[in-house]
Amino acid sequence: MAQTRLNVGLIGAGWIGKVHAEHLAFRVPEVDLQVIADVNEKTAREVAERNRIPKAVADYHDILSNPAIDAIVVSSPTNTHTQIVCEAAQAGKHIFCEKPVDFSLEKIDEALGWVEKTGVKLQIGFNRRFDPNFARIRKAVASFEIGEPHFLHIMSRDPEPVTPEYARTSGGIFMDMTIHDFDMARFLIGCEVIEVFTYGGVRIDPEIGKVGDLDTVLVLLKFEDGTFGTIDNSEKAVYGYDQRVEVFGSKGSIQIANNYPNTAVISDGESIHRDLPLYFFVERYTESYIAEMRAFAQAVLEDKPIPVSGLDGRLAVVMAMAARKSYDEKRPIKLSEIG
Amino acid sequence: MAQTRLNVGLIGAGWIGKVHAEHLAFRVPEVDLQVIADVNEKTAREVAERNRIPKAVADYHDILSNPAIDAIVVSSPTNTHTQIVCEAAQAGKHIFCEKPVDFSLEKIDEALGWVEKTGVKLQIGFNRRFDPNFARIRKAVASFEIGEPHFLHIMSRDPEPVTPEYARTSGGIFMDMTIHDFDMARFLIGCEVIEVFTYGGVRIDPEIGKVGDLDTVLVLLKFEDGTFGTIDNSEKAVYGYDQRVEVFGSKGSIQIANNYPNTAVISDGESIHRDLPLYFFVERYTESYIAEMRAFAQAVLEDKPIPVSGLDGRLAVVMAMAARKSYDEKRPIKLSEIG
Amino acid sequence: MAQTRLNVGLIGAGWIGKVHAEHLAFRVPEVDLQVIADVNEKTAREVAERNRIPKAVADYHDILSNPAIDAIVVSSPTNTHTQIVCEAAQAGKHIFCEKPVDFSLEKIDEALGWVEKTGVKLQIGFNRRFDPNFARIRKAVASFEIGEPHFLHIMSRDPEPVTPEYARTSGGIFMDMTIHDFDMARFLIGCEVIEVFTYGGVRIDPEIGKVGDLDTVLVLLKFEDGTFGTIDNSEKAVYGYDQRVEVFGSKGSIQIANNYPNTAVISDGESIHRDLPLYFFVERYTESYIAEMRAFAQAVLEDKPIPVSGLDGRLAVVMAMAARKSYDEKRPIKLSEIG
Amino acid sequence: MAQTRLNVGLIGAGWIGKVHAEHLAFRVPEVDLQVIADVNEKTAREVAERNRIPKAVADYHDILSNPAIDAIVVSSPTNTHTQIVCEAAQAGKHIFCEKPVDFSLEKIDEALGWVEKTGVKLQIGFNRRFDPNFARIRKAVASFEIGEPHFLHIMSRDPEPVTPEYARTSGGIFMDMTIHDFDMARFLIGCEVIEVFTYGGVRIDPEIGKVGDLDTVLVLLKFEDGTFGTIDNSEKAVYGYDQRVEVFGSKGSIQIANNYPNTAVISDGESIHRDLPLYFFVERYTESYIAEMRAFAQAVLEDKPIPVSGLDGRLAVVMAMAARKSYDEKRPIKLSEIG
Repeated sequence: MAQTRLNVGLIGAGWIGKVHAEHLAFRVPEVDLQVIADVNEKTAREVAERNRIPKAVADYHDILSNPAIDAIVVSSPTNTHTQIVCEAAQAGKHIFCEKPVDFSLEKIDEALGWVEKTGVKLQIGFNRRFDPNFARIRKAVASFEIGEPHFLHIMSRDPEPVTPEYARTSGGIFMDMTIHDFDMARFLIGCEVIEVFTYGGVRIDPEIGKVGDLDTVLVLLKFEDGTFGTIDNSEKAVYGYDQRVEVFGSKGSIQIANNYPNTAVISDGESIHRDLPLYFFVERYTESYIAEMRAFAQAVLEDKPIPVSGLDGRLAVVMAMAARKSYDEKRPIKLSEIG
Repeated sequence: MAQTRLNVGLIGAGWIGKVHAEHLAFRVPEVDLQVIADVNEKTAREVAERNRIPKAVADYHDILSNPAIDAIVVSSPTNTHTQIVCEAAQAGKHIFCEKPVDFSLEKIDEALGWVEKTGVKLQIGFNRRFDPNFARIRKAVASFEIGEPHFLHIMSRDPEPVTPEYARTSGGIFMDMTIHDFDMARFLIGCEVIEVFTYGGVRIDPEIGKVGDLDTVLVLLKFEDGTFGTIDNSEKAVYGYDQRVEVFGSKGSIQIANNYPNTAVISDGESIHRDLPLYFFVERYTESYIAEMRAFAQAVLEDKPIPVSGLDGRLAVVMAMAARKSYDEKRPIKLSEIG
Repeated sequence: MAQTRLNVGLIGAGWIGKVHAEHLAFRVPEVDLQVIADVNEKTAREVAERNRIPKAVADYHDILSNPAIDAIVVSSPTNTHTQIVCEAAQAGKHIFCEKPVDFSLEKIDEALGWVEKTGVKLQIGFNRRFDPNFARIRKAVASFEIGEPHFLHIMSRDPEPVTPEYARTSGGIFMDMTIHDFDMARFLIGCEVIEVFTYGGVRIDPEIGKVGDLDTVLVLLKFEDGTFGTIDNSEKAVYGYDQRVEVFGSKGSIQIANNYPNTAVISDGESIHRDLPLYFFVERYTESYIAEMRAFAQAVLEDKPIPVSGLDGRLAVVMAMAARKSYDEKRPIKLSEIG
Repeated sequence: MAQTRLNVGLIGAGWIGKVHAEHLAFRVPEVDLQVIADVNEKTAREVAERNRIPKAVADYHDILSNPAIDAIVVSSPTNTHTQIVCEAAQAGKHIFCEKPVDFSLEKIDEALGWVEKTGVKLQIGFNRRFDPNFARIRKAVASFEIGEPHFLHIMSRDPEPVTPEYARTSGGIFMDMTIHDFDMARFLIGCEVIEVFTYGGVRIDPEIGKVGDLDTVLVLLKFEDGTFGTIDNSEKAVYGYDQRVEVFGSKGSIQIANNYPNTAVISDGESIHRDLPLYFFVERYTESYIAEMRAFAQAVLEDKPIPVSGLDGRLAVVMAMAARKSYDEKRPIKLSEIG
């Protein structure tokens, strides 16, 4: 009889690890979350208890060496990703790994090499692909519903900026925030970006500038099929998370609106208004976080192709590097100039 | 050679007379507005001067006896309408008459009798039929775009209540305000109402109640084709004029939204909002006031059927009477019980 | 230590029973669904297996007599509700019961009597109260955000009509479909309806008329606070489920839009369009079905007031009876005329 | 007594000349349109007759030498603009001139020099500034309603491409189409653009490419206040004219939607849809064409500042040149590199 549930170990109990823990424990019927690892064993135990995970360990090698475990979910700090991916592949575990895979293309390539050599499955955590709104756009483009794409516009804004401390190790806005939009751009248009051009500034928090990062960027994309794209990222939309896209093509246009907690519109003596949008990605993308895990588990259980590959993870990193280089050198950068 | 412009005299320089004066003078290419009459000759002269109308008179008979005049527009007080219509018909002038035609069915019938006998054209001032939104609904119903109609909902709310003084002579809310919606109901569905049932109250200004009128009414309509309708009227929507309709049918539904001065949506830290709607009917229906005059002039010049007939004017009055009777007697009233 | 999870038995494995089974098994963390009963034991076993429910029985008395069970969820046919409620109350089990409680006020009163006498908690399945859109309206009304309510409009339309066979035992459209809207009307305005007036027809399926039921109804409501309301129900909106409400008041208006699977708007050579709404209540109200169960479990576990009481269940039945009586007698009916 | 109407001569009876003729004749109360000139005298006479313009001439010098004429409106071909402006200034006539002023900065500067020297008023035909939607955005930015601007997005798409013949003499897409958006960008943000970067392609009609023009362009703007902007231009939106803008700032965002002939939304078995937008600029911008003429006439009559200056006209031309240069040289171009 076919295996119906995947035995999973979760590595990393930081905030995104906590999000995954709750989903894997209660909302993903295809998964049995059996163990969680975190270097801070106390945190691991707390998360385990809250989510009825049978076991908590400090050392993730305990998971990799456990024959009962089929797959791991990697939500540890970025600088540990490739090391864990390499070891997990060698241990024959399937891998779900958070974005970005790494800040170094060499380390990414080594990890992807082990994945290829061992034949394990590797999925990268670009959860937005599983959001019904973005998926609807992809469907429209893929089915030629709006013809050949000519323009792509991504508006992607956070409700509050990262701290300067966070910015110091995040890899910078392109690697940390825009990376989701880079993946979305490739996913939506269904072909590769060949060049980027970047404007960037520090408009929100001067402290972010002092650590060498940006908080307000506009990235222009040129795709190999002739589509032109824009990504605007602001780390502070005072009204809350704002995630919208338009694709314009030879047969029409498709746009998605932002997501709100309800559809109510109030008319009073001051204005016609509605409540602020869902505050941030945890609220907005809950369902897509669950959906990416279900897709991963199903791909492993049914031996189907992984929906977001290691190469997808690598290409988004390349785009982030090119965007930063464009900002630094004040000129359009071909992706072929990178790695 | 065919006459290309209609020589018009305007009777009544009250506020709606002033609206018509400006439109007829500057915005209706099919009309030459040659003279204006008002019992207050000073007002007539002022309106004439402001709008470059060649002549102003105190006595409307000067217009009726003027052989150069083809048609009149009657915007004098309601209690003078039928008298003027009768005389104008006898003088062979075509007539545009404001709503309501009169509060008395006998007087209406006498006026319609003269119109029929003399063969002049008579159009009633139900301007909303010429609004692009309402017209789009009519088109959808008439073309079976939404199939057979099952429900009609009219939301029709004013930004501020009439004064108690006005209410004393207006004929009451059904005759003064709902009458537009009664006409709209017949126009949109394209068949006759056979019964009404009314709930009414005084929710806004107790003084309106003291003179025997209502300021908040809900009227249920039963059409001969089986459609059920509702009209809600409030004399005070704090956010401004609100004019919306939905028709639901066997093949779908059509709804129109309210009209706004711009399409801008502002997102800030408090809410997602837009500006208040166009304040009142003068702002909202400017174009339809012009369009009804153009339609009248064209119908006369080209000898085509009038788009809003005297019978339309009469039927709206019958519905207003039935609605009040239903409120008074607390029971559904068949229109056949009236007149 | 306080009990953290409620041990629940589910009675009835029809379609709504199946919906509850899945939610109670996987989506309601406060509940341990331990047993399911259905007179068709095979169905009970199948539903149990699919949802990993430990036990399936044919006779619900096995649940009532099980000391490990804290509470039951009743989703058996309507004509068994009050019998089960009475027995469950006597057995000291807390009760969640689907709507309508019963078609007979006597039987309802007997059941409510036992509930009161035994002190168990009873919640009725008016799930829509837990929908974020309806809840937002309730909040606006309760907080005086739109002032005193003057009008309530409920548009509530199904995508396909019931079968004539179903209509024969459903209690009719008022008891089966409008009952949700009756409850919603009371809930949203926060006061009681004192009179109803009904128009009804058979516009969709003549067979429904042959068994004495209606498929298209318009119900007028008069509330004790002077608010006037309308409910329009059609059993067939060709575009799918349609659930919208507006409340208009002295300080403004609040409206909710229908719910859609995504926010995408496509502009092409034909029109500007979006996908059809969520098809029916299972799609639209999934989250509110879960939320009502969580609220029930929490109310029991924490000994808090039940959010939808037995009296709420009774009053909706009274309104359904009055609406039918109004249709039959072609006159407004005071609720005081009923039971 | 102050002069209340401006005596105007119109030069050029091409299509935009015809639009102005009708507006000046019937819709601009501040203007007496006394004469029209066109090298094709027959056309001039036809337009005069249709619009009751007293006089038609072949040679515009007849207008310039007419002492009864206060001001001229120049809607002749672009390559005649500066010549006429120079002569009109010398003749002491106030001037309304269509965009673009000219393709040569030298000629523009000569014309502006004469305007300055003679003290006549010169307004450029950037009519969109008078559109209520764009004006609402400007108001929001100017009043700090959305704080300091960070991003500007202009979507500006035509329903059908120009002909290759037209493209041969239009000055190219940047000078002919984007020029409106360049002016809008400066107007909305209220400060100057310092650099542009352009992607461009031929996606609609290869014949347009053969004459050296583009039909699909994306222009990036850097403003001196740090705002980043995008303009997307397509010459073919199959759904019709599309004119939308968003400005995002430190305190919020403001967006305008496209303009439609009505607000009706139809729900049927296929989709939820509305009618296509207003087809093209004649339909969309009728009111703003009238408003720019009223503003011009009022500025002259009341000796107030002109709302769209000759410098505004020059700067838009500079931006068009920079945008083309960026496309040609594949690098960001500072405006200081131009002229």
